[in-house]
Amino acid sequence: MKLVLHNYWRSSASYRTRIGLALKQLAYAYVPVNLRDGEQHGDAHKAKNPLEFVPVLEIVEDDGTVRTLTQSLAILEYLDERWPEAPLLPRDAYLRARTRALAEIINSGIQPHQNLATLKRLKALGVNEQAYAQGYIERGLVAYERLAADVAGHFSVGDLPTLADCALIPQLYAARRFSLDIARFPLLAAIEERCLALPAFVAAAPDRQVDAVTS
Amino acid sequence: MKLVLHNYWRSSASYRTRIGLALKQLAYAYVPVNLRDGEQHGDAHKAKNPLEFVPVLEIVEDDGTVRTLTQSLAILEYLDERWPEAPLLPRDAYLRARTRALAEIINSGIQPHQNLATLKRLKALGVNEQAYAQGYIERGLVAYERLAADVAGHFSVGDLPTLADCALIPQLYAARRFSLDIARFPLLAAIEERCLALPAFVAAAPDRQVDAVTS
Repeated sequence: MKLVLHNYWRSSASYRTRIGLALKQLAYAYVPVNLRDGEQHGDAHKAKNPLEFVPVLEIVEDDGTVRTLTQSLAILEYLDERWPEAPLLPRDAYLRARTRALAEIINSGIQPHQNLATLKRLKALGVNEQAYAQGYIERGLVAYERLAADVAGHFSVGDLPTLADCALIPQLYAARRFSLDIARFPLLAAIEERCLALPAFVAAAPDRQVDAVTS
Repeated sequence: MKLVLHNYWRSSASYRTRIGLALKQLAYAYVPVNLRDGEQHGDAHKAKNPLEFVPVLEIVEDDGTVRTLTQSLAILEYLDERWPEAPLLPRDAYLRARTRALAEIINSGIQPHQNLATLKRLKALGVNEQAYAQGYIERGLVAYERLAADVAGHFSVGDLPTLADCALIPQLYAARRFSLDIARFPLLAAIEERCLALPAFVAAAPDRQVDAVTS
């Protein structure tokens, strides 16, 4: 079995998936899809994901079967079901639901309003796209901080990193790009510090990827 | 145990949750949250969901413990784990991931761009919010039709209704409100017809709810 991740260093959905893969210590081939150059709109990528988004995970089985997966949260759930070690969800059903709800605050509540495609579209419509995205980021992080307070331990839910942290850390990285002051969210800042002390989160960080442009 | 669903007849995330509850034949108290009157922004609702969205599901256990859940997909996953009968996900891990990915096309790919809060915000910014939402609906349904073609049977994934259908049917209902011609999506139209022949989908429909305004 071989895993191939089609992704982009700075895409937060890609970053989420890399964290999950690293937490589970799964090796994968890294295939960059350059979003700035529009590679996600090319026929090769569209055949893998008609929504023209990253990440896409290909699972090449030993018998040659290739399974293609889209959507970062669906990919993370798949990893968790197939490789249960280092679980991304708690055991208790209620806490699992709270974990998924935190991840969705980011996945459906923030990210759709701040991704590159949305920003471009808004800008073309004459909207201040930075302010638009900032509003959603702020609102989402306020909600995350409040809801995580009920269930957090060392991490967003309990004392082990979960799906929620896989979503949170890339969102905080993105929030800084939109000039938000993370110190306003003391719980999130504390969780981030603990996550970034773990090798899996370090290895998944945008600046560490082969396609990173850091100049 | 008692279930209380805080929701709104025409909200598509509410509608998704009602379908899941009905498929599992779970009774619940229906508490309307009038989005048109802004009840979701009131203190009572914000205490339940700081994102000020519906639905919110409260689970009142026999010992009096109240558990509060937000985010329609997280709620549906919870229902499926706690009441496994009439499963909302296939057994096979890969098909489960494909099911979740279809649901996410709608949940994170379309709905954030067409919900009431977004439409109001865009309108205030001088954007033609109807056209904006239409673009995302069209793009999302094209992707859903393409990806569902790999895995559909009588329903979106295989021959039983799943989480994906819980998301699809409310999205098609919303698409009509935005004047999209569903006939352009023959697979989705066929799946919709089969879903709407099931009592659970009929019972969950917006027009059947106590707070529906049909005049």
